[in-house]
Amino acid sequence: MRFAVLGGGSWATAIVKMLCENLDQVTWYMRNPDAIEHIRREGHNPNYLSSVEFNTDQLRLTDTIDEAVRDADLLIFAIPSAFLVRELKQLSVPLGGKTLFSAIKGIVPETGKIVGEHLHETYDIAYDDIGVITGPCHAEEVALERLSYLTIACSDKKKARMVARALSSSYIKTKVTKDIIGTEYAAMLKNIYAIAAGIAHGLGYGDNFQSVLMSNAIREMKRYTKRLYNIDRNINHSAYLGDLLVTGYSTFSRNRMFGNMIGKGYTVKSAMMEMSMVAEGYYAVKSAHAIKEDFPKKVKTPIIDAVYKVLYEQKNAKKTFAALADRMS
Amino acid sequence: MRFAVLGGGSWATAIVKMLCENLDQVTWYMRNPDAIEHIRREGHNPNYLSSVEFNTDQLRLTDTIDEAVRDADLLIFAIPSAFLVRELKQLSVPLGGKTLFSAIKGIVPETGKIVGEHLHETYDIAYDDIGVITGPCHAEEVALERLSYLTIACSDKKKARMVARALSSSYIKTKVTKDIIGTEYAAMLKNIYAIAAGIAHGLGYGDNFQSVLMSNAIREMKRYTKRLYNIDRNINHSAYLGDLLVTGYSTFSRNRMFGNMIGKGYTVKSAMMEMSMVAEGYYAVKSAHAIKEDFPKKVKTPIIDAVYKVLYEQKNAKKTFAALADRMS
Repeated sequence: MRFAVLGGGSWATAIVKMLCENLDQVTWYMRNPDAIEHIRREGHNPNYLSSVEFNTDQLRLTDTIDEAVRDADLLIFAIPSAFLVRELKQLSVPLGGKTLFSAIKGIVPETGKIVGEHLHETYDIAYDDIGVITGPCHAEEVALERLSYLTIACSDKKKARMVARALSSSYIKTKVTKDIIGTEYAAMLKNIYAIAAGIAHGLGYGDNFQSVLMSNAIREMKRYTKRLYNIDRNINHSAYLGDLLVTGYSTFSRNRMFGNMIGKGYTVKSAMMEMSMVAEGYYAVKSAHAIKEDFPKKVKTPIIDAVYKVLYEQKNAKKTFAALADRMS
Repeated sequence: MRFAVLGGGSWATAIVKMLCENLDQVTWYMRNPDAIEHIRREGHNPNYLSSVEFNTDQLRLTDTIDEAVRDADLLIFAIPSAFLVRELKQLSVPLGGKTLFSAIKGIVPETGKIVGEHLHETYDIAYDDIGVITGPCHAEEVALERLSYLTIACSDKKKARMVARALSSSYIKTKVTKDIIGTEYAAMLKNIYAIAAGIAHGLGYGDNFQSVLMSNAIREMKRYTKRLYNIDRNINHSAYLGDLLVTGYSTFSRNRMFGNMIGKGYTVKSAMMEMSMVAEGYYAVKSAHAIKEDFPKKVKTPIIDAVYKVLYEQKNAKKTFAALADRMS
C-alpha cells in the first residue's frame, strides 16, 4: 500500500512525520517547489514545523499533483479546505480505485460540503473508500513528539485499521470508528465553537462563561450530529469532546483569534484582513447554518445561530451574546 | 428567611456579595476578628477578593459561630472542608430545623464523606433540608462581575429555587436540580481530575493529552456518579462538565498546581509543604478510591486509580501515567 500526503502545511508535515515512523516510503505533494528543494537539501520543511527532521530517503517529494496521485493507493488530503477544489482541478489522473482519507477540518467553501461528501459526490467515490483522520491534535505537539491521540474513521474498518497502524507510534495512539459523518462534522463544528469562545473572550466574558459555553457546545454538537447521522456515538469521546476542547481552549487557534477580534469590535472584513488566512470556522458556520435549516426536524443550535448572526447578518456581537447567554445553562 | 454565610475565604466573600444584590441583610461568620474589624471599617475583606466593596449596613458580621447560626434559617457553609468539623465542634446551638446549603467542594477528611452526607449523618438533618451550591465558578470572576452560572441542588426544589433567587443577578445565572449527590460528588471528583491534569503537565504532556484526559475524565465521572445515584443526569451540563473544565483548565487551581509539582518530581510531602493549604483533591482521591472499592458492582476509574497510586502508594508518576495513557482513548 503506497501512501501519498497532499499538502505542505503544518498538519501535512506532521502526518508525513508520523507515517515515516512506519513506512519505508511516503509520497509528499506540495505546491511550493522552493520548499521541496529546501526539504531535499536540508531535511526539513522551511515554513512549517521546521524542527522536524526527515530522512529524505523516505520521501518522494513532488510539486505535481498528478505524479503524487498516480503512484499512490491511498491519498491523505491535508490541504486547507479553501484550496481543495483549486488543487483537484489540476488533476488529470482519476481518483477512482484509490482510498481517500481527509485530514482537512472544514467545509469545502464552493459546495458547502464536508470533504468526505464532496469527494463522494464530485468524484463518485464509494463511502467505503473514504476516511477521516481527526484529532484532538495540534501539529506542533506532534513535532515535539508529545503523546497525542488520533481517531481514524472509515465505514470499511479494515481500511481504518490500516491507516491507524501506519500512523501509530510511541507518541501517537489511534482509535478506529465507523462514524465518518460524525467525526468530520464534529471537527468542523468545533471551529465554530472556537470562534464563539473567541468572541466571548473579546467581549470580556471570563473562564466561568467559557466552561459553560463549552458544556453547551458539546450538547449542541451531540444534537446536531445525531440529526445528521443517528448512530450509537459517545459524544464525550476524544474525537468529539477532546477535539472541541483542544481547539476551544487553545489561544493559538486561528478560529479563536478571529472570534476574539470580532468580540473586540473589529468588523468581519477587517478581522479577515488582519489574519493571513481565513479561519475555517467562517465557512463552517455558513454551511452548518444552511444544513440545519434543511433538517426535516428542527434542532436547537443557539451557539451556531449566534455566530452566524454576528458573522453573516452584521448583528451586534455584544447583544447577540447576551441573548445567547440567556439560552445557556 | 434569614441567610447566614459561614466562612471568610474567597468563595464565602463571593457568596456574600451575590446575596447582597438581593437581600437586605446577610449574616456573615468568620473566625478572624481582625478581618471583621477591617470589613466594618473599610467595607472590604482584607484577605480575599479585596476589590469587592460591601455596604456594611447589609452585613451582620460575627466571629461567634453560635451567634450566626442562632438567628439564621438558612446556612451556607463556605469553609474549607478540612476545617468543617473543627468549626462545627464549637457550635452549641442546634442545627435541626434549619436549612443547610454546602458551597464546599470537597470531602470531610475526618469522615471521608461529602458535606451533605456528613451533615445528614452527624446531625440527623433530613436530605430535604440539605442543599448544594456548585459552579463552574471562580470566585475571582464573581468579584469582577463576569457572567457566571451556578447550579443549586436540593431534593426539595422549593428550597433550591429560593436559594437560586437569592443568588441570581445581572452577572449570576442559576439553575436548580434535585441531583444533590451527583453535583456534590462531581464537584469533589473534578479536584482529582485537576490533580491528574497537573501531574500530566508536570510530566511534560501537552494540550493534546490534556484534552483526551478531560474527555476520559467526564466519562469516568459519569460512570462513578451513576453508580452512586442513578438518576437521569446529563453529565455534560455545566454543573458537571463545566465545573470539571473550569478547574481542569485553570492554571490557578490549587489542585492543578499540587499535581504539577508531583509531576515535576516533588514528593507528596514536599509538594504539600510548598503550598500554604492542602489541595482538596488530596483528600478527595482517598475517599473516592475507598468509596468505589465498596461499590457492589465494579466501575472502571483509571484516572482516580492513577492519582491514588501516585499520592498514596508512592508509585512512580511517570510510569503510572504512561500506563494510564494506554487505558485512555
